[in-house]
Amino acid sequence: MTSTGVWLIGARGNVATTAIAGARALAHGETDTTGLVTAREPYSRLALPDVGDLVFGGHDIRERSLLETARDLSSNGVPSPDTVQAVAEDLRRVDRRIAMGAAINCGASVDDLADRGSLDDRLPVSEVVDRIRDDYRAFRRNHDLDRVVVVNVASTEPPLDDPDQYDTREAFERAVANDDRDLPASALYAYAALVDEHPYVNFTPSTGSALGGLRELAEDRDVPHTGRDAKTGETLVKSALAPMFAGRNLRVRSWEGHNILGNDDGRVLEDEANKAGKLASKGGVLDSILPDLEHNRVRIDYTPSLDDWKTAWDYVHFEGFLNTEMKLQFTWEGSDSALAAPLVLDLVRLIAHADERGEGGLQRHLASFFKAPLGVDEHDLSRQFALLDEYVDRHAREAAVE
Amino acid sequence: MTSTGVWLIGARGNVATTAIAGARALAHGETDTTGLVTAREPYSRLALPDVGDLVFGGHDIRERSLLETARDLSSNGVPSPDTVQAVAEDLRRVDRRIAMGAAINCGASVDDLADRGSLDDRLPVSEVVDRIRDDYRAFRRNHDLDRVVVVNVASTEPPLDDPDQYDTREAFERAVANDDRDLPASALYAYAALVDEHPYVNFTPSTGSALGGLRELAEDRDVPHTGRDAKTGETLVKSALAPMFAGRNLRVRSWEGHNILGNDDGRVLEDEANKAGKLASKGGVLDSILPDLEHNRVRIDYTPSLDDWKTAWDYVHFEGFLNTEMKLQFTWEGSDSALAAPLVLDLVRLIAHADERGEGGLQRHLASFFKAPLGVDEHDLSRQFALLDEYVDRHAREAAVE
Amino acid sequence: MTSTGVWLIGARGNVATTAIAGARALAHGETDTTGLVTAREPYSRLALPDVGDLVFGGHDIRERSLLETARDLSSNGVPSPDTVQAVAEDLRRVDRRIAMGAAINCGASVDDLADRGSLDDRLPVSEVVDRIRDDYRAFRRNHDLDRVVVVNVASTEPPLDDPDQYDTREAFERAVANDDRDLPASALYAYAALVDEHPYVNFTPSTGSALGGLRELAEDRDVPHTGRDAKTGETLVKSALAPMFAGRNLRVRSWEGHNILGNDDGRVLEDEANKAGKLASKGGVLDSILPDLEHNRVRIDYTPSLDDWKTAWDYVHFEGFLNTEMKLQFTWEGSDSALAAPLVLDLVRLIAHADERGEGGLQRHLASFFKAPLGVDEHDLSRQFALLDEYVDRHAREAAVE
Amino acid sequence: MTSTGVWLIGARGNVATTAIAGARALAHGETDTTGLVTAREPYSRLALPDVGDLVFGGHDIRERSLLETARDLSSNGVPSPDTVQAVAEDLRRVDRRIAMGAAINCGASVDDLADRGSLDDRLPVSEVVDRIRDDYRAFRRNHDLDRVVVVNVASTEPPLDDPDQYDTREAFERAVANDDRDLPASALYAYAALVDEHPYVNFTPSTGSALGGLRELAEDRDVPHTGRDAKTGETLVKSALAPMFAGRNLRVRSWEGHNILGNDDGRVLEDEANKAGKLASKGGVLDSILPDLEHNRVRIDYTPSLDDWKTAWDYVHFEGFLNTEMKLQFTWEGSDSALAAPLVLDLVRLIAHADERGEGGLQRHLASFFKAPLGVDEHDLSRQFALLDEYVDRHAREAAVE
Repeated sequence: MTSTGVWLIGARGNVATTAIAGARALAHGETDTTGLVTAREPYSRLALPDVGDLVFGGHDIRERSLLETARDLSSNGVPSPDTVQAVAEDLRRVDRRIAMGAAINCGASVDDLADRGSLDDRLPVSEVVDRIRDDYRAFRRNHDLDRVVVVNVASTEPPLDDPDQYDTREAFERAVANDDRDLPASALYAYAALVDEHPYVNFTPSTGSALGGLRELAEDRDVPHTGRDAKTGETLVKSALAPMFAGRNLRVRSWEGHNILGNDDGRVLEDEANKAGKLASKGGVLDSILPDLEHNRVRIDYTPSLDDWKTAWDYVHFEGFLNTEMKLQFTWEGSDSALAAPLVLDLVRLIAHADERGEGGLQRHLASFFKAPLGVDEHDLSRQFALLDEYVDRHAREAAVE
Repeated sequence: MTSTGVWLIGARGNVATTAIAGARALAHGETDTTGLVTAREPYSRLALPDVGDLVFGGHDIRERSLLETARDLSSNGVPSPDTVQAVAEDLRRVDRRIAMGAAINCGASVDDLADRGSLDDRLPVSEVVDRIRDDYRAFRRNHDLDRVVVVNVASTEPPLDDPDQYDTREAFERAVANDDRDLPASALYAYAALVDEHPYVNFTPSTGSALGGLRELAEDRDVPHTGRDAKTGETLVKSALAPMFAGRNLRVRSWEGHNILGNDDGRVLEDEANKAGKLASKGGVLDSILPDLEHNRVRIDYTPSLDDWKTAWDYVHFEGFLNTEMKLQFTWEGSDSALAAPLVLDLVRLIAHADERGEGGLQRHLASFFKAPLGVDEHDLSRQFALLDEYVDRHAREAAVE
Repeated sequence: MTSTGVWLIGARGNVATTAIAGARALAHGETDTTGLVTAREPYSRLALPDVGDLVFGGHDIRERSLLETARDLSSNGVPSPDTVQAVAEDLRRVDRRIAMGAAINCGASVDDLADRGSLDDRLPVSEVVDRIRDDYRAFRRNHDLDRVVVVNVASTEPPLDDPDQYDTREAFERAVANDDRDLPASALYAYAALVDEHPYVNFTPSTGSALGGLRELAEDRDVPHTGRDAKTGETLVKSALAPMFAGRNLRVRSWEGHNILGNDDGRVLEDEANKAGKLASKGGVLDSILPDLEHNRVRIDYTPSLDDWKTAWDYVHFEGFLNTEMKLQFTWEGSDSALAAPLVLDLVRLIAHADERGEGGLQRHLASFFKAPLGVDEHDLSRQFALLDEYVDRHAREAAVE
Repeated sequence: MTSTGVWLIGARGNVATTAIAGARALAHGETDTTGLVTAREPYSRLALPDVGDLVFGGHDIRERSLLETARDLSSNGVPSPDTVQAVAEDLRRVDRRIAMGAAINCGASVDDLADRGSLDDRLPVSEVVDRIRDDYRAFRRNHDLDRVVVVNVASTEPPLDDPDQYDTREAFERAVANDDRDLPASALYAYAALVDEHPYVNFTPSTGSALGGLRELAEDRDVPHTGRDAKTGETLVKSALAPMFAGRNLRVRSWEGHNILGNDDGRVLEDEANKAGKLASKGGVLDSILPDLEHNRVRIDYTPSLDDWKTAWDYVHFEGFLNTEMKLQFTWEGSDSALAAPLVLDLVRLIAHADERGEGGLQRHLASFFKAPLGVDEHDLSRQFALLDEYVDRHAREAAVE
């Protein structure tokens, strides 16, 4: 098996910390694979890199150590104190591999997180890109890795006003050369990955590799990339429930979704600008599955006392036979990081598998992981899983032929 | 198009009344097809009998007129007073086609509903069967029907102690001949249908055509039948949500389902004996989708003030990555009859279609309609719909070839 | 018994229509007194005017007849079609007593409701006041009433920027004389009532009689007035539940309240300006009962499909012994008008009683009816009821002495 | 200040362990007084024994050490690992003061808990009583205590078939002398306390001091006692919410309460016999506050995965003005022990205060703590708190006079 590095943008955040701690806890036999999609049948049949063999590094603009973050999270329930202790040395080791990151156009609330400024404070865009490329390269070289998967798990940026201006690779590269200060950090990270053929995963609603120019670049270099906005909680439930209404020809009149959460992501989303991108991808799921939906609102509010936990209340007002008005309500209470972290590991494993087999470009079979899957107009969770099932079947058949 | 009769066992109950009133309201343009699965794409492409052309009749042990039942239901919201008025004459007409039914082994609480006794009070089993066959035949002849679909929508019977004794057609027919008073009414109705090649739908958890002997008979005569226990509310939601947990490898520890309802069905289910069958089919869905589920309880309670409405509260305690304990809760509030009635019409249309095309035996593609689909071990709602999609595709291809 | 007129500001709205229809339905024996606080022990012992004897009139800026409004409401469930029919003639009679109203500073969304403009479109403020006073007087004279109670049930205005400038009667009257176009309609209606000694009830969060100058006027004239913002749903529950946490020394960390509703009030509250006043009075209840509450948010959203119904979801995150984090959630589903209408009748009866006995000024014993009770800093529902109990006891003792 | 001992019946259970751990954590400054009713104004003004000065001992039929129980609880969230460590030595010290208890007539599921049998296995009833009295006395003497408060926190017994046979002190004492094996353990513990003038608190639904004969004894000896069935969760919420419906003259049609919990208490309540007593006191609250309630059901189910947590779902179907049907639902999620433990400490402090002042017999001012307060027919939580407020006022006035 080849060796795989995982480079996390936002490496000191809750999701990254939980993913690293979880991977190391698995390696030490301190926890099991519950919550890891790639650990279940039939996906477990793919020849994926072992979670315990993944090597972690990353960028961040914060100074707080991974161990401190893990302890903060632990005081709120996840991971357990025992787990934190078991992986403390691993976290310290990864800490030394975290480089200073960029935060350009991430919004004021992300800037507030930066303890010692960021790359873009001092450098033109083209040099920021060079520094990022150097960091990726050094990580690969220092750890003798066969490949580095770059994963964006940083806080959500505000959406770009005019993404179409970067619709070609040429336009994007010219903007970098001309020090275009409208380019958001997530796109620079993605560019730096794709141009050097590192597989790229955009776990967030930020721009990342979604720009036309970067999609073109990924095709040119035949490097796999995927995204956008991992589907971890309320939207996951929506994508499972909405097809039920459609299937039974029940007319949904209003779907209200009200989310409260208390971590840094919640604080950043307090900012209306940053929230806009998130709401767009959360809302899109229902619009796709229930095209006749009259009223579709999603709210995300910051409730500090919840810390890393999030609660969603959804209220579905629907009409049945003889115009009967009926209701479904649900509440979902989960740990943001415990829901997200295993999906980071799943995506790393699956995109590394694709990269090894030379399957570049958009990874449509990964749609089930995302609220706004790039290049796939399928939001029904079951059908998204069917795409992954087919991928596994195909590889199983190929393996059998060999 | 050929003409289709619908013979309802339990014709004066809420589900039957709402199905008849709804079909007639559709015929008069008083309502739309919301809630009717066969009215949506792609199922609407099948050459199904028009809802407005269906001719209704049935058996019951109650005296109350359909119009009285419809008005009672209307005072509780569904159908609207305007709808009841629009179909009043139709209901009176169907009333005259309702014959006295049988209630053998339906339990004491069903006996309480019988206003003037039932067939089995006075007759040996074999004569009860003969009378039922005569009733079916007379209905077909009097209304010049190409086929009669028999649908069991009567209150739930207690489960049979030893169903295996009726495992062959020969054993069943011998029991009828020997006046075996353990045979439940639902099986007699099913036998009378299948032996004369009337398609049969068991909408309830009662025994119906599930006995080995009746399945054999259906094969012998090549008559289509389907069942068991229509999936209208809480279990429908379960079959949409449980695959999400399985898909994401989230370990469900406990799934509590608490149902309250206030109609006659609720009153009959107060009786622990009658409730047993219902609980078995409701519980089976989760056991199939989540084989490692530690704790799976379903409660059904009678709450008179709810009348024909039912509310379910489900509490799902699950574990995610790093053994994180999380929760999903939902409440579902619906009109029992408004949820069930369109499915009666869907099933009649689909089984009539099968019968016309000579597709006898178990109808596996109808699994999505049932809590305990006969002959299919698939409870995932999306996969059940996929079975119906394939059926439609196949017929579309055949039609294209012709 | 003396005769009592009820002059409703916003007479064509849902609350007014339901109050009138309900009072007349009671008069005709078509419904019972459920929901009417003054109909229960011990309040029923007070010598209050009979609901059936109340004479209704009012102002509005809309043209739609009461009967049309009642029918619209009825299609959504309340009142029943039978009730509407029973009171149709009464509604037509009241319709003829509704005069054109004022809408100054009620916000753009209220202006949108005005079918034919409003008084203030054409007249200086002082003449608007004169017209209103004339309307009150004519109503009293034409129906030979002993007293007229003026009740504001109009849509919520935006809050005043600088209410302190009207802190004395003299300042208020000077503003009227100087055609101060910052004065809101609700204050003009209240002024016109108080200056001519009509008891006044502010059922809404609008300014009404809350200005210092109007409170002074009420004292001068010894005329009873009360308000502000009737407590009908979510806030009622809060005022019952919050004392439980305080009583048990449980520390509430966050209280999230999310309200959705679909009627005109909901539409008007879509406007952030109009919503501000409502949120202030809804939030104040918790701040008073739970002074250490860390986080208190109330949202009100417009969900058109709900029509006159409102649903609230409240999520209470609290801490108990040994810093244990626990949660209470509730959902409340009610008809806005059916909850509000009986309280209008209660308040009319109680303030008429006070007026008859010469009890002018603020009516502190009516605190239980309001989210922001004028002149009383008590939000605990039980203690508010205790104030009313004491009032009844005092009158009972006085009656016994006589 | 005088010294107070606390003798816990069921001393190794979750509630006792949490109460002891919590008291010691407070003594060490490891936690604050959140959740302790006597720590808040105005109750904190009473001259109560300090929580940190309480000396603990007790009876149990289990062998497991307090520290083991505390660690088990801690793995489920409460108390925290840090707290357990801080009080570990204290728990070990209390462990040595726990004597073997009695379990007569506690039901088969309690018997299952007994690791090494119980007192009543070997001894006649009169000797069981003597042994218990000796244990109380030895505890007092060994720790040089001014008083010992006996608190029953053992698992719920099945209710007595014929409690009236013990309606006088004489009848009770004769039964003890005659070795009447129908006497339940809780009554023996209560008798042993009262006869030697130890104040007694019945925290559970078991019989305890509720028998007529024991109430007579308490009067004779002028020893304070109180009970029955501490109000910690769902019923607490009910007693806060039900008065709201009554106050607003809203007619509650159905109140469904569904409780799930996973600790030993839950397991014991699986036994229908043991559950009967619990359901009676839980149901009584609503019957008292809402005498016209049509339908009142409480269910308690055992859901092992919840461990020491309990969740309640309550569904309230009520009718308002114009016969409008509306709904309130709530879910309550709390730690059983963290809710109960501080109330144990509150009751000990308050009954010790009463005892010191010679206030014997039933303690009516403690009604707010119980589901079925002995000797008080008041279930409205606010009015129950008012009784305690009056008690504090009276003592404050007396102290001022002195």
